[in-house]
Amino acid sequence: MSLFDVGAIVSALHDARDEWRDSQRRSREPGSREFPSREALADIVESLKGALFPMRLGPPDLRHESEDFYVGYTLDSALNALLNQARLELRYTARHEPRAAEDIDAQAGAAVREFAAALPGIRRLLDGDVLAAFQGDPAARSVDEVLLCYPGILAMIHHRVAHQLYRLGLPLLARIAAELAHAQTGIDIHPGAQIDAGFFIDHGTGVVIGETAVIGKRVRIYQAVTLGAKRFPTDAEGNLQKGLPRHPVVEDDVVIYAGATILGRVTLGKGATIGGNVWITDDVPPGAGVTQASLQNAPQRRLV
Amino acid sequence: MSLFDVGAIVSALHDARDEWRDSQRRSREPGSREFPSREALADIVESLKGALFPMRLGPPDLRHESEDFYVGYTLDSALNALLNQARLELRYTARHEPRAAEDIDAQAGAAVREFAAALPGIRRLLDGDVLAAFQGDPAARSVDEVLLCYPGILAMIHHRVAHQLYRLGLPLLARIAAELAHAQTGIDIHPGAQIDAGFFIDHGTGVVIGETAVIGKRVRIYQAVTLGAKRFPTDAEGNLQKGLPRHPVVEDDVVIYAGATILGRVTLGKGATIGGNVWITDDVPPGAGVTQASLQNAPQRRLV
Amino acid sequence: MSLFDVGAIVSALHDARDEWRDSQRRSREPGSREFPSREALADIVESLKGALFPMRLGPPDLRHESEDFYVGYTLDSALNALLNQARLELRYTARHEPRAAEDIDAQAGAAVREFAAALPGIRRLLDGDVLAAFQGDPAARSVDEVLLCYPGILAMIHHRVAHQLYRLGLPLLARIAAELAHAQTGIDIHPGAQIDAGFFIDHGTGVVIGETAVIGKRVRIYQAVTLGAKRFPTDAEGNLQKGLPRHPVVEDDVVIYAGATILGRVTLGKGATIGGNVWITDDVPPGAGVTQASLQNAPQRRLV
Amino acid sequence: MSLFDVGAIVSALHDARDEWRDSQRRSREPGSREFPSREALADIVESLKGALFPMRLGPPDLRHESEDFYVGYTLDSALNALLNQARLELRYTARHEPRAAEDIDAQAGAAVREFAAALPGIRRLLDGDVLAAFQGDPAARSVDEVLLCYPGILAMIHHRVAHQLYRLGLPLLARIAAELAHAQTGIDIHPGAQIDAGFFIDHGTGVVIGETAVIGKRVRIYQAVTLGAKRFPTDAEGNLQKGLPRHPVVEDDVVIYAGATILGRVTLGKGATIGGNVWITDDVPPGAGVTQASLQNAPQRRLV
Amino acid sequence: MSLFDVGAIVSALHDARDEWRDSQRRSREPGSREFPSREALADIVESLKGALFPMRLGPPDLRHESEDFYVGYTLDSALNALLNQARLELRYTARHEPRAAEDIDAQAGAAVREFAAALPGIRRLLDGDVLAAFQGDPAARSVDEVLLCYPGILAMIHHRVAHQLYRLGLPLLARIAAELAHAQTGIDIHPGAQIDAGFFIDHGTGVVIGETAVIGKRVRIYQAVTLGAKRFPTDAEGNLQKGLPRHPVVEDDVVIYAGATILGRVTLGKGATIGGNVWITDDVPPGAGVTQASLQNAPQRRLV
Amino acid sequence: MSLFDVGAIVSALHDARDEWRDSQRRSREPGSREFPSREALADIVESLKGALFPMRLGPPDLRHESEDFYVGYTLDSALNALLNQARLELRYTARHEPRAAEDIDAQAGAAVREFAAALPGIRRLLDGDVLAAFQGDPAARSVDEVLLCYPGILAMIHHRVAHQLYRLGLPLLARIAAELAHAQTGIDIHPGAQIDAGFFIDHGTGVVIGETAVIGKRVRIYQAVTLGAKRFPTDAEGNLQKGLPRHPVVEDDVVIYAGATILGRVTLGKGATIGGNVWITDDVPPGAGVTQASLQNAPQRRLV
Repeated sequence: MSLFDVGAIVSALHDARDEWRDSQRRSREPGSREFPSREALADIVESLKGALFPMRLGPPDLRHESEDFYVGYTLDSALNALLNQARLELRYTARHEPRAAEDIDAQAGAAVREFAAALPGIRRLLDGDVLAAFQGDPAARSVDEVLLCYPGILAMIHHRVAHQLYRLGLPLLARIAAELAHAQTGIDIHPGAQIDAGFFIDHGTGVVIGETAVIGKRVRIYQAVTLGAKRFPTDAEGNLQKGLPRHPVVEDDVVIYAGATILGRVTLGKGATIGGNVWITDDVPPGAGVTQASLQNAPQRRLV
Repeated sequence: MSLFDVGAIVSALHDARDEWRDSQRRSREPGSREFPSREALADIVESLKGALFPMRLGPPDLRHESEDFYVGYTLDSALNALLNQARLELRYTARHEPRAAEDIDAQAGAAVREFAAALPGIRRLLDGDVLAAFQGDPAARSVDEVLLCYPGILAMIHHRVAHQLYRLGLPLLARIAAELAHAQTGIDIHPGAQIDAGFFIDHGTGVVIGETAVIGKRVRIYQAVTLGAKRFPTDAEGNLQKGLPRHPVVEDDVVIYAGATILGRVTLGKGATIGGNVWITDDVPPGAGVTQASLQNAPQRRLV
Repeated sequence: MSLFDVGAIVSALHDARDEWRDSQRRSREPGSREFPSREALADIVESLKGALFPMRLGPPDLRHESEDFYVGYTLDSALNALLNQARLELRYTARHEPRAAEDIDAQAGAAVREFAAALPGIRRLLDGDVLAAFQGDPAARSVDEVLLCYPGILAMIHHRVAHQLYRLGLPLLARIAAELAHAQTGIDIHPGAQIDAGFFIDHGTGVVIGETAVIGKRVRIYQAVTLGAKRFPTDAEGNLQKGLPRHPVVEDDVVIYAGATILGRVTLGKGATIGGNVWITDDVPPGAGVTQASLQNAPQRRLV
Repeated sequence: MSLFDVGAIVSALHDARDEWRDSQRRSREPGSREFPSREALADIVESLKGALFPMRLGPPDLRHESEDFYVGYTLDSALNALLNQARLELRYTARHEPRAAEDIDAQAGAAVREFAAALPGIRRLLDGDVLAAFQGDPAARSVDEVLLCYPGILAMIHHRVAHQLYRLGLPLLARIAAELAHAQTGIDIHPGAQIDAGFFIDHGTGVVIGETAVIGKRVRIYQAVTLGAKRFPTDAEGNLQKGLPRHPVVEDDVVIYAGATILGRVTLGKGATIGGNVWITDDVPPGAGVTQASLQNAPQRRLV
Repeated sequence: MSLFDVGAIVSALHDARDEWRDSQRRSREPGSREFPSREALADIVESLKGALFPMRLGPPDLRHESEDFYVGYTLDSALNALLNQARLELRYTARHEPRAAEDIDAQAGAAVREFAAALPGIRRLLDGDVLAAFQGDPAARSVDEVLLCYPGILAMIHHRVAHQLYRLGLPLLARIAAELAHAQTGIDIHPGAQIDAGFFIDHGTGVVIGETAVIGKRVRIYQAVTLGAKRFPTDAEGNLQKGLPRHPVVEDDVVIYAGATILGRVTLGKGATIGGNVWITDDVPPGAGVTQASLQNAPQRRLV
Repeated sequence: MSLFDVGAIVSALHDARDEWRDSQRRSREPGSREFPSREALADIVESLKGALFPMRLGPPDLRHESEDFYVGYTLDSALNALLNQARLELRYTARHEPRAAEDIDAQAGAAVREFAAALPGIRRLLDGDVLAAFQGDPAARSVDEVLLCYPGILAMIHHRVAHQLYRLGLPLLARIAAELAHAQTGIDIHPGAQIDAGFFIDHGTGVVIGETAVIGKRVRIYQAVTLGAKRFPTDAEGNLQKGLPRHPVVEDDVVIYAGATILGRVTLGKGATIGGNVWITDDVPPGAGVTQASLQNAPQRRLV
C-alpha cells in the first residue's frame, strides 16, 4: 500500500489554487506562465556585469584583445533577453487594460534601446563608486579588490542597472534586479531611489533605502542605515497613496554612520555627519553633526 | 620535490578528528554519513515551492493544463525524499536510545503523511501572507510581484513548511529548512515560532524571531526587529533549561517598526504600535503606541 | 532593421574603459586577466571545508574507511589551487615594484606550506567553536546540528581560514574568503581580526568585526553587534593611515548582546556583559554589566 | 603584441559567410536563428522515452503511484516543445513560398495532436520489439535487460517516433531524431522506412535502412545489413528524382544475417533467410535461403 | 481551449502499460524502480578508469604525490556504488525465486570484494593491450596517445571490467558496462568473451565478439570483424539453448583483417592470418593464411 | 568491519603503476599531468564549429547583428586554449630530446597562428562539402539539414580542422580531434589523409581512411568503405617503417559504394565507380566501373 494518497493532496491543492484565482478574479484558461522570470533577470544582470567590466567580471579566460568582441556578443544577447522580459512585464501590466501587441512591442523596444544607450554612463558612475570606496576605506588595498570583494559595489551595480529599468517604465524587472543584490548583500535599495556619483556603502548588511530617496554626490553610509518612510499617507478612502515623496533627501558629502535611521521627507544638509544608531525625523542643517548625545542635549531635535 | 608533505597533514588531521570523536564518545566504526543533508532539504523545499505555487515558482514551461500532473509528480518525489531525511533524523536522534527500526520507519511515515495533509492549509496561509504584503506596502504593484520578489514571503514559505516539520517531531529538518531561508534573506525565524495568518515582514534583513514566540493575525514587522529571549534560565546544576516559553507574545494587528527589540515572555497587546529602535522588556497594553520618546517620558516602562 | 546599434554601445563602453585605465595609469597591453578569482577561492574553501570535516561537510557518499584518502586527495588539489591564487595575488601586488618571478613563487610556496601546516590547529579551534555554540544556545540539539546549520559556524570556518591567509601575506585572498561567508551569512568579519578559542556568534546577521579587533576566549556575541572604528586617523597630508589599531579589544568571557556597537580601540574587560543596542566608545572594566539604562544613569560612560 | 590578429580572421570569416549566403540567395537581415534545434529534439525524445517507459527510462526516483502524474507532466511539456519545433520547421520550409502564420500554426498543431494520439500505439509496437529481441537472442536474460541495454531497441524507439513525425509532414524533425539514435548506436534508419511489428536488430552497428524500405512483421536483421538503393533515377534534365520507391520490400518472418546488402526495389519473400555478407539485387522467393555458396552455384541469381 | 487532451493520452498510455505488465505477469504494487541504472554504471566505470590510470584518465589537476589518495577515495566510493548495483541485480534476478535478503547481500559483497582484488591484474592486462596497440600500429606515436585516443583501448578497459563482473555472477551489470563502450566505439564485445593478454583492435567500428568466444595472446583484429555464432541450437521444445559454446576459438598470434566473418565453434590455429572480408565457418590450421582468393581456389574450405 | 581492504588494493595498484613506469623508463617525480586533454580539445573544436558556422552551430540565441562579435570572442578564446594544448603536445614530444622552453613556445605560437589563418579556407571547403552532400543525396531537403544532421559533415568539420593541426606539427591534437568525430559518427579518418574539395560520405558508419590516403575533388563514398594499407613494410631489423605512402590515391569524381575495400598505394582513376563490397588491391583505370561480377569475369583484376 502506498504511504500517501497523493491524488487527494493534489486535489486539495487544486482547490486552494482555484480559491485564490477566483478571489483574484483570474481566468483559468489554458496556457503557460506569462510573467518575468527571476532566473532570466539573474542571467541578464550577470551578462551586463561582464559587459560593463569585462576583464574583472567577465569570463576568466578573456583577453584584452577580444574585449570588444566579448562585450558586443554578450550585450546583444543580454539586451535581446531583456527585450523579452520587458515584453512580459508590459503585457502583464496590460492585462487589465488591453493594448495592441504592437504598442507593447514598440514600448519594450524603445525602453531597451534607451537602456542600452545608458550603459556607458552607468559604467562611469560605477567607476566613481569604486574610487569612493577605495578612498573611503582604510582597509582597501586596490580598486580591483573593491570591485571584486565589496558588497556595496555589487549592490550599486545592480542598483544603477535597476534604476534605469525603473525610469524606463519597467518597475518589476527593476525590482527583481534589486532583490537579486539584496539576497547576496543584505543591502536593500529600492530601484526608484536616485543616487548621484561617488556613493559608498561600507559593510552594508541591513541598509534600506526607500523608493523616493534622493542622494547627492560623495555620500558615504554604513551598515544598517535606514532611509525610510515615516508613515504611509492614505487617501480619503483609506487606500495607501502611492508614489508620493516620502523618503529623505541626502545632500552632497553627507556621512551616515552604522545603524542610523532617517525617516520621512527630511533633508540632511550638505556635509552633515549623522552618528551611529541615531534616529532622525527632522531636517539636519548643512555641516551639522548629529550624535545620540547631541540629540539628548538638544530637545528641539528630539525623537518622535 | 613536492612542496607539501600532504601525508603529514592528513595524519595530523586524522589525529584531530580522533580527538574530537573520542571527546564526543563516538565510535570509529566503518560506514557512511548517516545524517540529514542540507542539499537534500534544499531540493525538497524547492520542489514544495513548485508544488504549492506551480505557475509562479514551478518550471517556466509549465502550463495550466498540466498543473495537477506536475504537482502530483513533484509532490510524490519530494515527499519520498522527505521520508528518507526524516528516517535519517530519527535514527540520528535514536543513537543514544536504541529503538526498533520499524518504530522509526513508522514514526517517519506518520510524520510525513501528516505533513503532506497540511500542505493545502499552508498554501492558504501563504496566500494570506502575500495579500498582507500587497496591502501593506505602497511600493507593491501586484500580488505576483510580492510572491516573486519579496524576501519576507520567501522566508514565510520556508517557515510555514519548517514549522510543520518542527511540530511533527523533526526539529533538525525544520532547522535546516529555516536556515536555507536565513541565508537567502537575512531573516532568521526559528521553526518553533507560531505565526498566525496575514503576517508581513518588510525588507527583513536582520529580523530574528525566537523559538517560543507567538504571533497573532495581521501582524506587520520591519527589518532588524528582534523577538528574543531576555535570559536563559538554568536549572539547579546550571544547565540551560530548554523549551521554556521565553520569547514574546505578539497579539493581532500589532505593527513593529525597524530595529525594535522585544525581549522575554512579554505580551504586545492587540493593535499596539512599536516604534523603530525601541527596546522593550515589559508588556505593552492593547492599542498602545511606544516610541523612544514615549519611553523616555514614561519611566514606568523604562529600559532594564 | 536591428533594434540596437550594438557597435556604437560597444565603442562607447570601450572609451569608458580607456578613460578608467588611463586614470588608473594602466597599460593596454594584450593579455589575460591576472587576478585572483572569486570562483577559484570559493572552490578552494569548499574543498578545505570537506578536508576539515570530511564526514559532515565532505561528499555525502564518503565512508569512514576512506576518510584519509579523501582528505589527502582533496587537500593536495586545494593547496595547489591555492598556490596558483597566491601567485596571482603576489604578482598583482608586485606590479608597481617589479620582483623576480622566482621570489614570488618562493614566497607563495612558503605561505601555502605554512597554511597547510596550520590546518590541524584550525580544525581544533573550530571544534571548540562548535562546542561553544552547542553549550551557549538552548535551542541547539546536537553538535552536528550546530556544524551543519549555524551561520556563525560557517562564518568562523571561513574566518579561521581567511585569518591564516591574512597572516601569511595574502590579504586579498583572505578578503575574498571572508566576503564569501559575508554573502551567505550576513556576518562581516575582517580577516585581520584576531579571535581566540570558543567563539560563538548567534543568529549573526549584521555582525561587523573590524580589521584590528582582538577577541579573547569564550566570547559570545549576538546579531548586529559592531566592533568598529571610531574614526580614521589621517596623516599630515590628510591620507588615511592604514594598519593602526583602531578596533576594540574584547577580553575572555565577554558577552555582547544584539545590536550593541563598540567603537574604537577600547577594551571590554574580562567577563563583562554588554546589553543589547548599547553604544560604547570607552573602556568597560572586567565583570561590568552595561545596559542602556545603566548608561543613562552613569554619565561618566555617556554616549559620544 | 598579440599573437593573432583576430580582427583579420573575423573579417575573412565574415567574407566567407557572405559568399555562401549570396550563393544560396539568402538575405542578410538582422534576426536570430529560426531553425529546429538538435538539442531541443534531444530533450524532447528523452522526455518521450520517459513518458513511454516511465519506470525504466524515466527518473530513477519515480514510483508506481505517481507514474500517471509524471507521464502527464512530461508529455505536456514535451508536446509543447515539439509544437515549437514543428512551427520552426514549417516556417523554414515556407520561406520560399510564403504562407499565413495562422496556417503554419494550425498545421503544426494538427500534426502534434495526431502525434500525441499515436503514442499509445507506439508503446505497444515497442513492447513487441522488446519481446522479439528477448526471444531472438540466446544471450538475453530478461525483457528489462533488452529495454535498457540493446542498441537495437534504442534505435527503434527513435525510429517509431521519427516515423510518425515523418508521416505527419515534419521530415526534418524526424531526421534529427533518427540521427540522434544513429550517433549512439551506429544504426542508420531513415525515418521514412515502414517497419511493422516485432522487429529485432542484433548488435546493429553499420545497419542502414533506406527511406522507402518496407519491412513486415517479425523480421530479424544483424549488424552491417544494408537495405539500400541500387541507383538514383534522374529525370530528363538529370536531376535526382526524389520520393520514388527505391529500397527493398522485406516480407514477414525474414531473417537477414550480418553484412548482407540488399539493393533496389526488390522483394524478399515471406520467411526467406539471407546469409551473411551476400549481395542481392533481385527478388528472393518466399521461404528461400540465400548464401554466398548458393549464389555462386545459381547463376540466374548472380551478382551484378 | 487546450491543444491536446493530455489526460486522454495519459490514460491510454496507462492502459498500454497495464497490458504489458499483465502479459509479463507483473504486480502493480506501489514502489520505486528496483533495477540497475545505466547512469550509475557509467559513473562507476568512469571512476574505475580514473583509479586504474590516475594520471591519464583521472582528474586533470591530479598530481603524482596524491595519486594513492585519489585512488583510495575514488575506489572506495566506486566499489560501494557497485555494491549497491550488485544488490539490485541480484534482487531482480531473485524475484522469481525468493531468497533471504542476507544471502543476496552476502553474495553481492563477496562478488564486489573479489572484483576489487582483481583490479591490479586488470591494470597489468590493459598495460599489455596498450603496448600491443603501440607496437602494432605504424601510426601510433606514444603509449599515451594509444591510451587516450584509441577506441580499441577504451573498449578493452570496459571489457576487462565487464568480464570480471560477468564471471562473478553479475551479467546484467557486465552487459551495461559493455554497451557503454559499444555506444562510444562501435565495438560490441559480449562480456562473456575470454580474451587473453596483448589484444589489439584497430579502428574497431563494427567489431562483434560473441559470448563464448575464446581469444589467445597477442591477437590482432581490425574493424568490422565478426566472431559470431552460426546457428542457435534449440532443445526438443524449440527453445533456444543458452550457454552452449557457439563462437570461435582464436589461438595465440592470430591476425584477422577487416570485415572478416568467423562463425561457429571453429578454431583459428596459432599464428593464422585471416584476410579481409573472408567468410569462415570451418577450422583454420595453425600458421595458415586465408584470403578470398585462396578460398575460391580451395573448394574444401568453401563458403557454406 | 569494512567490506574491502581498500588500502591493500591501493597499494597493489601502486605497484602495478610502478612496474609500468619502470618498464617505460619514466621518472616518478612529483608534478601534475602534462599532456593534452581530450576534454580541452572537445571544447576547442566545439568553439571552432561555432566560429565557422555561427548561425547554425553557434549558440541558439545568436543574432545576425552580433555574429562578428561572437566569432571574434569565441575564436580568441579557442585559439588561446589551443595554444596551451599545442605547448603541452610539443613539450611532451620534447621529453626525450630537451629543447629550450622558448623554442617550444615559439613553435606553438607559429603553428596556432597559421592554423587561425587557415580557418576561412576551411569554411569554404566545408561549404563545398555541404553542397556535395545536398546534391548527392536524393533524401536531402536543404543545405541546413545537411549541416545539422549528416554525420559525414560532422566528420569532415573535424577532419579539416584536424588535418591542419597534423600539417602544422601537432599530430596528437589532430588525432584527438579526429577520434572525437569517430566516436560520434563511426567514421574514422586519419588526420593525415589529404581530401580535396566537395567530398561526401553518406551514412558513414564503418568508413576508415588511412594516414597517407589522397582523395581528389568531388569524390563520394558510402558506409563501411575502407581506404587502407595492404601490409606494413618493416625495415632490416623488423621495425615498422612509419610514414611511407601506403594508402590509396583516389582521383577526382570517383564514387565508391558501401563496403568496398581498397588496400595499398593503388590509384582509382578519375571518374571510376567502385561497386559495393568489392575488394581491390590494384589500380583501377579512369572511368572504369568495378563490381563483384566484373571482378569474377576478369581474372587479371582478381582478388589477392
